[in-house]
Amino acid sequence: MIYLDNNATTAIHPEVLKEMMPFFTEQHGNPTSNHRFGRRAHTAIEEAREKVAYAVNAHPSQIVFTASGTESNNTIINGIAEGYSDSIFAYSAIEHPCISKPIEALKKRGFSSIEVSVDQNGLVNMESLNDGLSDKPTFISVMMANNETGVIQNMSEIVHWAKKNKAIVHTDAVQALGKINVDFEALNVDALTISSHKIYGPQGVAALVVNNKIDVVPFIKGGGQEKGLRSGTENLAGIIGFGKACERAAGNAVIFREKIKPLQAHLEKHLASMGAVVFGDQTERLPNTSFFAFPRLDGVTLLTALDKKGFAIASGSACSSNSNEPSHVLLAMGIDKDLAQGAIRVSMGVDVTMEQIKEFIVVLKSEVARLKQLAAMAA
Amino acid sequence: MIYLDNNATTAIHPEVLKEMMPFFTEQHGNPTSNHRFGRRAHTAIEEAREKVAYAVNAHPSQIVFTASGTESNNTIINGIAEGYSDSIFAYSAIEHPCISKPIEALKKRGFSSIEVSVDQNGLVNMESLNDGLSDKPTFISVMMANNETGVIQNMSEIVHWAKKNKAIVHTDAVQALGKINVDFEALNVDALTISSHKIYGPQGVAALVVNNKIDVVPFIKGGGQEKGLRSGTENLAGIIGFGKACERAAGNAVIFREKIKPLQAHLEKHLASMGAVVFGDQTERLPNTSFFAFPRLDGVTLLTALDKKGFAIASGSACSSNSNEPSHVLLAMGIDKDLAQGAIRVSMGVDVTMEQIKEFIVVLKSEVARLKQLAAMAA
Ligand SMILES: Cc1ncc(COP(=O)(O)O)c(C=O)c1O
Ligand SMILES: Cc1ncc(COP(=O)(O)O)c(C=O)c1O
Repeated sequence: MIYLDNNATTAIHPEVLKEMMPFFTEQHGNPTSNHRFGRRAHTAIEEAREKVAYAVNAHPSQIVFTASGTESNNTIINGIAEGYSDSIFAYSAIEHPCISKPIEALKKRGFSSIEVSVDQNGLVNMESLNDGLSDKPTFISVMMANNETGVIQNMSEIVHWAKKNKAIVHTDAVQALGKINVDFEALNVDALTISSHKIYGPQGVAALVVNNKIDVVPFIKGGGQEKGLRSGTENLAGIIGFGKACERAAGNAVIFREKIKPLQAHLEKHLASMGAVVFGDQTERLPNTSFFAFPRLDGVTLLTALDKKGFAIASGSACSSNSNEPSHVLLAMGIDKDLAQGAIRVSMGVDVTMEQIKEFIVVLKSEVARLKQLAAMAA
Repeated sequence: MIYLDNNATTAIHPEVLKEMMPFFTEQHGNPTSNHRFGRRAHTAIEEAREKVAYAVNAHPSQIVFTASGTESNNTIINGIAEGYSDSIFAYSAIEHPCISKPIEALKKRGFSSIEVSVDQNGLVNMESLNDGLSDKPTFISVMMANNETGVIQNMSEIVHWAKKNKAIVHTDAVQALGKINVDFEALNVDALTISSHKIYGPQGVAALVVNNKIDVVPFIKGGGQEKGLRSGTENLAGIIGFGKACERAAGNAVIFREKIKPLQAHLEKHLASMGAVVFGDQTERLPNTSFFAFPRLDGVTLLTALDKKGFAIASGSACSSNSNEPSHVLLAMGIDKDLAQGAIRVSMGVDVTMEQIKEFIVVLKSEVARLKQLAAMAA
């Protein structure tokens, strides 16, 4: 099996696991406990916090550990809703559902929201931001890199707009970290989301990076862990693993740029020759992601055929793989619904080789040909 | 070091870790993905769900995996608030802060709440429930066993009252599971919280057991995992470990009853002879928990001395160990503030031996004597 679904989740790196193991095999301790085990756990968490902070060029005090990117996004949105009265929430039309769904829920509670459109490349429409908004948002969230297309936003333009309009700005950098440079300070955002299992760390741990000047009311409330911002006994081993995975992020970004980007180019050259449409290919994208469709070929059918042949890919975001709806990201980009229905995603990992991609191309060609023939016969 | 702080967190059982390891070393997969890795992850999660369900005698469809007991409690409370308009929340005065804090936050949003008092033994005052409530609550939460005192509530009385009053009833069974029998069906509650790291499973995973007839609006929103009730990529290895830990819960409860309860009796006989007050000892308690104080001896001072001598104990709940406030549980039981300030907690694990408890008693005696002498000299 060749795994080409790294935007869904990555395998834990052996070094990450090695770092976690002592916390599984010895008494792991509760970091809040007032004894040796507790203090050791506390120290380990603070060291991991420093590693995470370093990876995104933030201060350790700005890191709040959570259990998922989803929770981080829910935390910032609900935290702003409680912290600022009558907040207005803006978000791009291509955000992950863990941004749009919490905002939709707040609308039911009387908050306002603004969905910001994107252009045919999947980039936020700056004109619609500059001219089109009836209200000034309190908060705006735009993802740094899209999980489906890999399209990278022009964050400096968006942040510039947000600051000018006194909006709190958040970016979901879950797919960016470890593939391109993510710099909290340089981005000049107020909050940023990252997740461990997308960067060869364990599942079940993530972070919200947040400027302490923002008034984020705690989302998960209780014992007051994470300086009160996120209660619940800490996932000690998970946090340790996340810290270690973060240490590898910068190096991985170099591998993606130097080793993986040429593989992407090679794959997409062949995709073009096969008549596939590669979404977002007119703009800057993550070096590992190719989201594409063959006209009149169903994506899930192709995905299933490739799975049988030993290649794990996706038909869109993992979280919506089980639905038959075409990707909301593609629809927002103005892609025809029929074409969108054919979309499949290849997301390479750091370890993928040219041989594997060549093998994939061979199998893809034959499966596409076979399925087209079957479709022609059935028609 | 002898670890007597198992109500704060437990060490992972080697069998639990063994079961988790394949999910750390092979490609772990995203359970929502539509390929082999995804399906394997999905199947593994459903198997773990069955184990968790079996341990609490619930149906697998009633298990919602979360990241902590804290999150489970926040989920049910916020889920009810959104699902039932104008809900009124009742909770006992000795609940964990992850029950009281979310309810307090809802009060700020206009919801009502009722704090139900407890008697000097820490048991919910049934008279105050029967006669004292000005409003009929929509929801009532009473913990099955208290984390500090170990006091076990008379759940059948409380549930009977709740059903008669058409209130949705929830119990926090985080400290009960694996120590006493926890039976979702027999308890006849609508929702129940359990947490992995209290039963020799990994930190970072827990569950809310919930009757599907209750209208719980999702708390963490996004991709729609856990049948929409809890979004976020699943902590696969964590869930596997929790499942395995649940398989051991019933056996552990037998060990606690047969092997640990006599050690508790032995310890408390000596505590009595030393002039300690054991809180809640006039009623049924968990077989592993002794919460006690020596008049005029500060709890944190004693805890620190015992830590130096190689014994890890707590001065109350781990989550509030860093505060100097006396336990809200003891204050609710009408314990004098000065005495409450002296409280320390021994919570034994399944592996503790009579020799270790005897050693502890020897050291405790000498440390108490030493500290009393120091205090007398300083006075
Ligand atoms: C862009 C983006 N945001 C958020 C998430 C959610 O993060 P998590 O999987 O940690 O819940 C994902 C992945 O599922 C994602 O791709
Ligand atoms: C009774 C009780 N409820 C809830 C919790 C919170 O669970 P968790 O530690 O998994 O967040 C704890 C422990 O901290 C507890 O003892």
